[in-house]
Amino acid sequence: MSTLIRTGISLESDLLKRFDRAIQKKGYKNRSEAIRDLVRDYAVAEDVEEDRSVVGTLTMVYDHHRPKLTEQLIEAQHHAENMVLAATHVHLDHHNCLEVIIMRGRSSEVSHLADRILSLRGVKHGKLVLTTQGKDL
Amino acid sequence: MSTLIRTGISLESDLLKRFDRAIQKKGYKNRSEAIRDLVRDYAVAEDVEEDRSVVGTLTMVYDHHRPKLTEQLIEAQHHAENMVLAATHVHLDHHNCLEVIIMRGRSSEVSHLADRILSLRGVKHGKLVLTTQGKDL
Amino acid sequence: MSTLIRTGISLESDLLKRFDRAIQKKGYKNRSEAIRDLVRDYAVAEDVEEDRSVVGTLTMVYDHHRPKLTEQLIEAQHHAENMVLAATHVHLDHHNCLEVIIMRGRSSEVSHLADRILSLRGVKHGKLVLTTQGKDL
Amino acid sequence: MSTLIRTGISLESDLLKRFDRAIQKKGYKNRSEAIRDLVRDYAVAEDVEEDRSVVGTLTMVYDHHRPKLTEQLIEAQHHAENMVLAATHVHLDHHNCLEVIIMRGRSSEVSHLADRILSLRGVKHGKLVLTTQGKDL
Repeated sequence: MSTLIRTGISLESDLLKRFDRAIQKKGYKNRSEAIRDLVRDYAVAEDVEEDRSVVGTLTMVYDHHRPKLTEQLIEAQHHAENMVLAATHVHLDHHNCLEVIIMRGRSSEVSHLADRILSLRGVKHGKLVLTTQGKDL
Repeated sequence: MSTLIRTGISLESDLLKRFDRAIQKKGYKNRSEAIRDLVRDYAVAEDVEEDRSVVGTLTMVYDHHRPKLTEQLIEAQHHAENMVLAATHVHLDHHNCLEVIIMRGRSSEVSHLADRILSLRGVKHGKLVLTTQGKDL
Repeated sequence: MSTLIRTGISLESDLLKRFDRAIQKKGYKNRSEAIRDLVRDYAVAEDVEEDRSVVGTLTMVYDHHRPKLTEQLIEAQHHAENMVLAATHVHLDHHNCLEVIIMRGRSSEVSHLADRILSLRGVKHGKLVLTTQGKDL
Repeated sequence: MSTLIRTGISLESDLLKRFDRAIQKKGYKNRSEAIRDLVRDYAVAEDVEEDRSVVGTLTMVYDHHRPKLTEQLIEAQHHAENMVLAATHVHLDHHNCLEVIIMRGRSSEVSHLADRILSLRGVKHGKLVLTTQGKDL
């Protein structure tokens, strides 16, 4: 954890009023935290762009009755063994499963693994989120 | 599970070549599955737009040493008790935790809960994915 | 134009260093302007969400040899006469035209008109940008 | 223009019903055109990813009373002279202008120029759209 620094910005008062109203709707208790979140989001976007090491979570919905799919999913994850940190499985109904796979790696590697999984037959829908490892943030 | 129907589309041959090349790079073994995924993604986007019942996964990174944050996170989830299906926690390092919260509800409700959690002080970064419950898809 | 107000935020020094490096790459000369841009973007996103009056620009590429398309495009724009402020046309090659239609209206109305145009046969690709009218920003 | 080819896909009937309903709402008169649009959008996304030559339109709102901004905008465009195809200007009100700059170039070059312009002081908000040159689409 690095030390806290104070920095100032100048803004039009009308803009500030609109911002305060907008962040309040989202649940923010204070303006400083909302601005910090914007700054952090910008920094994370740069991590992804620069192909640094990030954490990715792949959400996907699939039909577990599809023949061989479970094996293919396990195989894809094992091939990238050192990238997968954890996986959570939820039974949505008799046919449909939701799985969230938590990965760590360079953003291009994580994206590639996600593409590979999402293209499997029987995987109905899915999306990848790339986020920070938390250090320096 | 509904019955399979066959539908045809006409496309310029050059466009089809480009599409085939692009989907192959993502890992698709066959064109039909790639088009089905586009169709499903369109249907899911409409579910979200029309505020239907969806599944959401909120990925977030937070500093678990932040006073009271753990209590606030638990409280926020309990307030929306019937929406939260599961949560997975990964220790990224001494300070940073990754948590994925899996929710079910109307897309506006899921988004609202996600906003509330992401605005808490100590939650550094996060993103919400909205996906399907899997039925009719 | 409203008066300028100064507001302060506290940030970890490491995060600030990363942010400064990231914004410099994008061309920012100063941190205050970069943060203002994030704040404005947040305010514009809220305008769109709350269906306020915005400015939209629809970029689209189409084949002007497609029978009746030009008439359909003109008709769609005239139906929404008071929304369309201007349109710019660029000839990309013998077949392909790029057109940018600049509109003003509530975000839902602008989106609806854009959907209608993009769904026309012969319109190959397009995207809508929603931005601010500039007041209070 | 390449020749038209017919290709078939098999889909669950319930999914197809949902897709038909969703595209109808957007204005599509026929399913084939809606699927073609998804296929084209996929191909364009790959053009951008692979840094091919694309067309970009930058929408931005700025305060033309800001000292030196007009000169800086002209200078930035002239520096990239061969990239800028056209620019359209709309007076939104006494202070605010909307400008749309139409560019052609590799997606990384177009993005870089857009970043440079958006980071100028006085440019309040803006967004870049990357689309196709229309060939092979």
